[in-house]
Amino acid sequence: MRTVEWNYDTHKLLMIDQRRLPGNLVVASYSDYLEVATAIRDMVVRGAPAIGAAAAFGLALAGFQSNARSIEGLIRDLEHASKILKESRPTAVNLTWALDRIMGQAITFSGSVDAMQQFILGHAQSLADEDVATNKRMAAHGAVLLNDGDTIIHHCNTGALATVDWGTALGVIRTAHEQGKRLHVLVDETRPRLQGARLTAWELEQYGISYEIISDNMAGYFLRSGQVKSVFFGGDRVAANGDVANKIGTYMLALAARDNGVNAYSVVPTSTIDLSLAHGGLIPIEERDTGEVLNIQMNGERVTPIGAKARNPAFDVTPHRLISAIVTENGIVYPPYEINLRKVVG
Amino acid sequence: MRTVEWNYDTHKLLMIDQRRLPGNLVVASYSDYLEVATAIRDMVVRGAPAIGAAAAFGLALAGFQSNARSIEGLIRDLEHASKILKESRPTAVNLTWALDRIMGQAITFSGSVDAMQQFILGHAQSLADEDVATNKRMAAHGAVLLNDGDTIIHHCNTGALATVDWGTALGVIRTAHEQGKRLHVLVDETRPRLQGARLTAWELEQYGISYEIISDNMAGYFLRSGQVKSVFFGGDRVAANGDVANKIGTYMLALAARDNGVNAYSVVPTSTIDLSLAHGGLIPIEERDTGEVLNIQMNGERVTPIGAKARNPAFDVTPHRLISAIVTENGIVYPPYEINLRKVVG
Repeated sequence: MRTVEWNYDTHKLLMIDQRRLPGNLVVASYSDYLEVATAIRDMVVRGAPAIGAAAAFGLALAGFQSNARSIEGLIRDLEHASKILKESRPTAVNLTWALDRIMGQAITFSGSVDAMQQFILGHAQSLADEDVATNKRMAAHGAVLLNDGDTIIHHCNTGALATVDWGTALGVIRTAHEQGKRLHVLVDETRPRLQGARLTAWELEQYGISYEIISDNMAGYFLRSGQVKSVFFGGDRVAANGDVANKIGTYMLALAARDNGVNAYSVVPTSTIDLSLAHGGLIPIEERDTGEVLNIQMNGERVTPIGAKARNPAFDVTPHRLISAIVTENGIVYPPYEINLRKVVG
Repeated sequence: MRTVEWNYDTHKLLMIDQRRLPGNLVVASYSDYLEVATAIRDMVVRGAPAIGAAAAFGLALAGFQSNARSIEGLIRDLEHASKILKESRPTAVNLTWALDRIMGQAITFSGSVDAMQQFILGHAQSLADEDVATNKRMAAHGAVLLNDGDTIIHHCNTGALATVDWGTALGVIRTAHEQGKRLHVLVDETRPRLQGARLTAWELEQYGISYEIISDNMAGYFLRSGQVKSVFFGGDRVAANGDVANKIGTYMLALAARDNGVNAYSVVPTSTIDLSLAHGGLIPIEERDTGEVLNIQMNGERVTPIGAKARNPAFDVTPHRLISAIVTENGIVYPPYEINLRKVVG
């Protein structure tokens, strides 16, 4: 199944609960858009493209939940739901992009309330289907950056689980693997939520791609050793100048890549590019509950002192000078990003 | 009590079991040098100066364990024990330094076997006492680098627990705090063994110094925000050119500091400086059991897939170009290190 999928029999949204992997493959089902917003916030579903699709289907649920008897009433309900869904996570722009796109289509609709509810669902479904197609195009473009025998460092999870299916950065690796290139992936565990250790390792295991998990702070050691050929990650929001907001730790990884002459690539659908923001300093950075940092155990014992304090910014901004290229479904974008990003955004 | 301490009543070596902190303060006692070697390997005791002192007392135990009836026989037994103790951890040079220093003194001894056993213990005790005095001198020198109101990022644990007492980098912070400077420490949790989250947070809590734990990969975010005034860490071995081998992650941290114009300081006793090595590439880097990376739990559940593979280099080398100064008990050393380190090594 897909990470995010509509069930046409039950009229419910199904999502793989990513917090339970790799130990348990649990599929959660949703019939209330408010629960979808909570699921996005609590990271049942995560990854910029996946939360875009989840929000789109959440909006479809809001349509079916509405008691409005007129198109105007339904649009008001949808606008309210859209606002709540947008607030669930602030950094990834795909959420806003997906909701704005469907709302833009909704206001052009004329017909019955029932028909419009179906129309919204149809557009959510198209958006999800497009995400898979987009990822495969992105992967085909990006795979040329990988050669047989390469060792790659990968940050966070950008695979099938971060998208509707296939993946962004991990999708590139997957496609290159299917082309017969022998690859080895050093998987950043990606503290604090450990999406690398938890999800990327699980995906690579399934695809039969060679990998080893490392602590995030080990990437520099391997980059200095000369054995790493490239660094890959996704992106949650790309500013007009090419600055990339992505999972916390990306900046230090890209910096270590640059210090060792290794290329660092961000792989994103063009829906992640936000031309309305001149630079990365304008991207809102979510700071999450400190329990994500503090509630860690080794050998079954709590590690941090009771009452310990922490900080937990979930993203950082990697300045464009550290990004070798941005891979999109419309091709690979090289600097100067200020000029070249505009060429791939539809 | 000290982290490493001889009990003159029981003739045993006492060490705080640092693997059990902060949950449990357990003091382990040792009467067999082989068990001391195992304790060093298993990180009951860790921190370059602390393992130097532990090895010195381990050698004293080996002296008492020896059945030799002659000084020559005792020296042979001590040399054997010294070799085994040295092999327990390869990267920190303090271990070798401490053992070589005591063996150098042992071979000058003339007297009875009994007297020589006491002589070895006496020298181990001197070495431990000197470590505390050295740390306080280091702290006094280094404290001038901190100003009232500073926020500092600190890596790993370099406090009382990493030494016989007081600490190296954390000793500097502690002395500055006692001078009345208000400081705030962002504590790198320091994966994989989490010495920051586990030990540094515990120490800072006890000293009443303001702190927050962060994942190692968040340091770049805070450095870019402009709120961090300096970065402090210890060192396990410093090469003649100023390259610093230290806990894994130090290189990426120092790189992020440099990228933001923030000073990065290594605080080490001169016993950590190994002038016999021209550069850091010659320092042996220990790779430890991958279970340290893989055996992590959140909310009581295993995070990594069963059968997952990992890598676990325990140290990295930070090139001297990223080190703003090296603080020693004989003063602060600035570049060019090739010339200036020689001036502080006795």
